[in-house]
Amino acid sequence: MLMNKDIAEFPNQLASVAAEIEALLKQLLDDRPLEREISRPGRLTAAIRHAALDGGKRLRPFLLVETASIFDAPRAGALMAGAALELVHCYSLVHDDLPAMDDDDLRRGRPTVHKAFDEATAILVGDALLTLAFDVMARFQVHDDPAVRIALVFELARASGLGGMVGGQMLDLAAEGRFEPKRKLAESEIATLQAMKTGALIRFACRAGAILGQSDASALAGIDRYGNAIGQAFQIADDLLDVEGDAKMLGKAAGKDAASGKATLVAALGVDGARARLRELVAAADEAVAPFGAKADTLRAAARFVAERRT
Amino acid sequence: MLMNKDIAEFPNQLASVAAEIEALLKQLLDDRPLEREISRPGRLTAAIRHAALDGGKRLRPFLLVETASIFDAPRAGALMAGAALELVHCYSLVHDDLPAMDDDDLRRGRPTVHKAFDEATAILVGDALLTLAFDVMARFQVHDDPAVRIALVFELARASGLGGMVGGQMLDLAAEGRFEPKRKLAESEIATLQAMKTGALIRFACRAGAILGQSDASALAGIDRYGNAIGQAFQIADDLLDVEGDAKMLGKAAGKDAASGKATLVAALGVDGARARLRELVAAADEAVAPFGAKADTLRAAARFVAERRT
Repeated sequence: MLMNKDIAEFPNQLASVAAEIEALLKQLLDDRPLEREISRPGRLTAAIRHAALDGGKRLRPFLLVETASIFDAPRAGALMAGAALELVHCYSLVHDDLPAMDDDDLRRGRPTVHKAFDEATAILVGDALLTLAFDVMARFQVHDDPAVRIALVFELARASGLGGMVGGQMLDLAAEGRFEPKRKLAESEIATLQAMKTGALIRFACRAGAILGQSDASALAGIDRYGNAIGQAFQIADDLLDVEGDAKMLGKAAGKDAASGKATLVAALGVDGARARLRELVAAADEAVAPFGAKADTLRAAARFVAERRT
Repeated sequence: MLMNKDIAEFPNQLASVAAEIEALLKQLLDDRPLEREISRPGRLTAAIRHAALDGGKRLRPFLLVETASIFDAPRAGALMAGAALELVHCYSLVHDDLPAMDDDDLRRGRPTVHKAFDEATAILVGDALLTLAFDVMARFQVHDDPAVRIALVFELARASGLGGMVGGQMLDLAAEGRFEPKRKLAESEIATLQAMKTGALIRFACRAGAILGQSDASALAGIDRYGNAIGQAFQIADDLLDVEGDAKMLGKAAGKDAASGKATLVAALGVDGARARLRELVAAADEAVAPFGAKADTLRAAARFVAERRT
């Protein structure tokens, strides 16, 4: 069972994987062109580094690496797959921050890419990061079996695309009343929006670890339930932070979503209701990884961390 | 050797593949979510269909399909890979047309996506199309060997990303004086810009056919030289059309590039010099596919078509 020391040690474990991902991203975002590349424009790689380095908890790669370790998949490949996944997350932040989208000036306490550079560069940074994600996921360093890599590419695309993250951002803009008169969303509609916008990529992180470890179908199903629960918990905690957090800790404007009347489960359930839901989700995450015994202690601690995080 | 009938029949062959690609894209851009997708927002799929259907010569998929046929690769897989490639091309047009980029209102005689819908939707359409391209390229329908599919994913990402198409668009914006005072580019700088912006994807189209056909290294090298030549010819012909074409035939504004002093080889070499270069490139394309004999007649006709096209 999960010990207090597991929870106390969790932030250090997370920071340690984050440092490994950071080092790997630095290598991947070099100015020198690679095989079959013609040249890498300096301003573009500088803006890409601004978008992808020195920031973020790297939670998605962490979940991927820790899930892979349950199945004894080699760590180097899991880190490479985690870096690919993080590139998708970084691209989504750059495009979501654009003036035509959420119009944010600040991200992780620094100017957003279109503020630090310009809008055209920011669009291309997002495009380049998304493309690079698939480049990296296709590399033999991820796994020596091409069937494993193609499964990861396929699932990453499904989680990120029009039926996943991109579609979720579209639903979020619609919920703001961008395209039609604004209306109050039902709880189930909010759940769908969030399962797509943030849930799909977090769920992929967990599934990817199991795929890398060539798990059987039953183990993959357990990991999938865990990923689903932690993905939901992540979004509810994020929405609670927006209501209760402070801008300095978050590195971005607090209360912005609440002020704009954004569709969140906190608005639908109330703060106490949202906290109760978080407890249920942590219990569901625990249950889902029960078959893995002590090997899943880090995933259990991650569920608690995600539900209780303050930044 | 190439007969006049091959050249006369070429437009019909091109149109026939285009119709097959169109039908396939229609299937891929359905509203119904697929396995592992949660839902596909209706406004997003409508805007994606606006971007990807009813337009374009489908030259890139055509080159892929015809190259694959030289190596006797199954046609159905080549069409699927061609559809994936065309999705990348379509995404690049949507993002290039954005107000922050080239700010175009018209594309293929119809309003651009951000005009027909809105800017946020257009950004997401591009993101979704790019992501879907990798989803499709990873599917078993492309080829039953995952090693072939992962090679295609990898090369598509390299051709499209920061060292290829996206980087080329960045260089094009820089050449317009967007980031620094404008200066005259050397011929070699223009060649690099174009090899990245349009050349890389056309070259990939040809290489992809050879990869699908599991060609040997020497045959792949020949196809690569062909793709390189036809990619350059395509861009020079495009720039000549901009100088000499008429807006009604093109379905977009003519003379816009020349008026803005855009870096083109036509500006660097003059119209006669550009025409002479086109003849050299067609000869180089012919030479590159010489080892394939009559099997490559369609590729030879394609090189002539690309060099001589009027729309």
